[in-house]
Amino acid sequence: MRSAKLQAACIQHECVAEINTNINICKHNIEIAAKKGAKLIVLQELHNSLYFCQSENPKNFDLAEEIPGPITDIYSSLAKQFNVVIVCSLFEKRAVGLYHNTAVVFDTDGSIAGLYRKMHIPDDPGYYEKYYFTPGDLGFEPIPTSIGKIGVLICWDQWFPEAARLMALAGADLLVYPTAIGWDRSDNEAEQLKQLNAWTTIQRAHAISNNLPVIVANRSGYESDTSKQTSGIKFWGSSFIAGPQGEFLAHANATDEAILSAELDLSATENIRRNWPFLRDRRIDHYFDLVRRFLN
Amino acid sequence: MRSAKLQAACIQHECVAEINTNINICKHNIEIAAKKGAKLIVLQELHNSLYFCQSENPKNFDLAEEIPGPITDIYSSLAKQFNVVIVCSLFEKRAVGLYHNTAVVFDTDGSIAGLYRKMHIPDDPGYYEKYYFTPGDLGFEPIPTSIGKIGVLICWDQWFPEAARLMALAGADLLVYPTAIGWDRSDNEAEQLKQLNAWTTIQRAHAISNNLPVIVANRSGYESDTSKQTSGIKFWGSSFIAGPQGEFLAHANATDEAILSAELDLSATENIRRNWPFLRDRRIDHYFDLVRRFLN
Repeated sequence: MRSAKLQAACIQHECVAEINTNINICKHNIEIAAKKGAKLIVLQELHNSLYFCQSENPKNFDLAEEIPGPITDIYSSLAKQFNVVIVCSLFEKRAVGLYHNTAVVFDTDGSIAGLYRKMHIPDDPGYYEKYYFTPGDLGFEPIPTSIGKIGVLICWDQWFPEAARLMALAGADLLVYPTAIGWDRSDNEAEQLKQLNAWTTIQRAHAISNNLPVIVANRSGYESDTSKQTSGIKFWGSSFIAGPQGEFLAHANATDEAILSAELDLSATENIRRNWPFLRDRRIDHYFDLVRRFLN
Repeated sequence: MRSAKLQAACIQHECVAEINTNINICKHNIEIAAKKGAKLIVLQELHNSLYFCQSENPKNFDLAEEIPGPITDIYSSLAKQFNVVIVCSLFEKRAVGLYHNTAVVFDTDGSIAGLYRKMHIPDDPGYYEKYYFTPGDLGFEPIPTSIGKIGVLICWDQWFPEAARLMALAGADLLVYPTAIGWDRSDNEAEQLKQLNAWTTIQRAHAISNNLPVIVANRSGYESDTSKQTSGIKFWGSSFIAGPQGEFLAHANATDEAILSAELDLSATENIRRNWPFLRDRRIDHYFDLVRRFLN
């Protein structure tokens, strides 16, 4: 089996109201990560702005960007300048009145290698995403790049094993989750810890069940709810990179800005699949009910 | 939401060559668990014998039992005597030349509430199950009992999120995994730890993604390979009970006999599903490829 080493990085930071400040944080961290040798750099979900979905406000649609457009031009230039693949996340304006939560992957030459539009859209107090984002219609297609096929999924997608599995079946070499999740400060510490552990555990499990590395980039910092309906969100950071058995390779804390990096061996997947051949044994003759809502 | 407390237990132990000794271990532990208040008792996979699948030997088919038969009569009596639901595991002789790896669930009146026939059958050095067991043909159907619908899955099934999901979609109140897994002593300690962590993590993840408690009963102890092809299996114990956010409620160590117990609140699932409504958001319009082997 040929070795396929990939130096990967993911970036965790707080966001502020001023878009250019966020972009400059990303630029700065991309430069550092690239100079340390990263060939793949994953940014967190909606890294150019505050997490505006805390309330439903029509003015927030002004934050949406066309693809390609001025914002993608910036990240395209960075990918080309530093010869890296960048997974960028943005609020996509696809047409007048049609918006998505979209990841754009830039190849090392600055070209757009592909898009992924968030398929599973949450909606619960503080996360009113169904108001802003039409569910993705591109399916679960890994994005082919010069460094491998990237199975990009976004935030809420992380709770659905179906999404990770479909990326694996479509040949993904690794799974990547830009995300923005945090605590409701009205939950007690024990509940907060349970939620964080659940989030970490399920994403490590996607690595395990598919024998693929996983990279998770989450934001940190507290953002208030401008509508005053909730007490805001304390984003829980805790970004991580795990290997294909779910083992931690790098792990940020809940609060600090972080540039995580790890050397992935994409060829390890083959060895692990030889030892634990899950793909061989899936009971596809009995999975047809997975496309039903509930079995009643 | 009504409360639905369930005192659950699972039993971890070493097995020996003598069938009656194993049965007596089970009897003894069932009695202790029941007297401590358990209403559901989960036994480990193939608890009546050594793990005979370490080699392919036609004589081992003599270990298979009919259902109902003398072995199920024993566990039926215990369920009735102690007024408990028992999840029992056995090598089923369904017909001459047709065998399954089957879980039998007894209700509190001693009746057979239902069977689950292991759907995903492993086959790798030391675990030659495809030789012994025809893959199950009963699908992923929770077994209705007086204490709830039990989503019984067996060992290798634990690596497949599809199995847990289908049980949840069919209305399971909890997931239960009788299992028999251990270390190859030729793996170093770091690799052994990775495997154990992967196994624990993925089963906790089934709890998380389906918002259901999970009970895992694994065997402990070393069993040699009578065919001398391998150095035998050191079964890694580590049985556990986790709540519907994947949180540990009880956890055994790798070596000792254990009767784990925990009070589950089956009504907690509804509260968690209100907060993290995964079932609402599954993209069933884009899951059809899950019934394909691979997407090429």
